[in-house]
Amino acid sequence: MSNFSSIRHLIRGMTDAVAGDTHDEPRLMERARPLLADLISSDDWLPDEFAQPHPEHYQQYLLYCDPHERFSVVSFVWGPGQRTPIHDHTVWGLIGMLRGAEVCEGFELAGEGSPPRATGTVRLEAGGIEAVSPRIGDIHRVSNAFDDRASISIHVYGANIGGVRRHVFDPLTGAAKEFISGYASPNMPNFWDRSRA
Amino acid sequence: MSNFSSIRHLIRGMTDAVAGDTHDEPRLMERARPLLADLISSDDWLPDEFAQPHPEHYQQYLLYCDPHERFSVVSFVWGPGQRTPIHDHTVWGLIGMLRGAEVCEGFELAGEGSPPRATGTVRLEAGGIEAVSPRIGDIHRVSNAFDDRASISIHVYGANIGGVRRHVFDPLTGAAKEFISGYASPNMPNFWDRSRA
Ligand SMILES: [Fe+3]
Ligand SMILES: [Fe+3]
Ligand SMILES: [Mg+2]
Repeated sequence: MSNFSSIRHLIRGMTDAVAGDTHDEPRLMERARPLLADLISSDDWLPDEFAQPHPEHYQQYLLYCDPHERFSVVSFVWGPGQRTPIHDHTVWGLIGMLRGAEVCEGFELAGEGSPPRATGTVRLEAGGIEAVSPRIGDIHRVSNAFDDRASISIHVYGANIGGVRRHVFDPLTGAAKEFISGYASPNMPNFWDRSRA
Repeated sequence: MSNFSSIRHLIRGMTDAVAGDTHDEPRLMERARPLLADLISSDDWLPDEFAQPHPEHYQQYLLYCDPHERFSVVSFVWGPGQRTPIHDHTVWGLIGMLRGAEVCEGFELAGEGSPPRATGTVRLEAGGIEAVSPRIGDIHRVSNAFDDRASISIHVYGANIGGVRRHVFDPLTGAAKEFISGYASPNMPNFWDRSRA
């Protein structure tokens, strides 16, 4: 029996939050933070199928998407030593560390032809939360802090993140390239079977 | 590439409908009917994993659950010759035939110790829709119309149907027994990956 009450609580809370003013980013992030903190305070609920690393690259599994795509919840699974390119999000996001640890390097663009400028590095341990958004700093590169095991973070975004048109940046030239991430699985977990959890 | 736009459209439409008056059953059923009719007008979207019969008994797969559990959408998959017991729902439901055909026998209770009384039988062909609710008749027994192949209907209910405490009835004595159906799979389809569909 897994414990799905925290993820259901987060989903309901964010559903109610976006029913008000969807564009009040600080308010939505403030609502999301304690819900995410509660969710990652225990590591007994994420079904194994949505915690599987891929040998070649990180995996992003959709856990929930709002019907109007005003927010989504994903599990981000790192194999040993894996990292993202430098990328942006274009919407607000909270990153909560569930298992293991990750290193987030912040960047800002330094103009045409120049490498993005590093703005600081944070190491996120289980239970910790980081934030991104165009307002507070939206460009980063994230790595599994471990070379010998998987790490998993749970992200809440202010959109259906797998469908957002956003960018990766060349670390040498800063050149932007568009991408849409999609999701690693055609399935999502069923958090609503009350005969199971 | 499957086409998930009709199921997304139904989910969004019902989400908006329940945000008003959740208890106005006739209005909700009226909103759901054309959305369900559109959904079952083509049979190119239900992922195979949620269309699998079980050798022993019918399967109920959750396709979507409203965060506040005010409505749900399920696929109901019949193996050859399978049928339900006589049962009720306690909430409104619409049954839309996607593939194959099913036979719905209506019943009403006839008092303690007496067999439930048959109120009429309907054969539902692909594209057809039936309704149940405590208001319009809530007790039925449903069978696959075929002995040699699977049939599939898509249901919309006014609750998280897999979690509802309801009843099966003895066909000889009418005696009621409580049950909670649950769901056949720990997963749901991901209808929100716009890089796929
Ligand atoms: Fe990121
Ligand atoms: Fe039924
Ligand atoms: Mg908990």
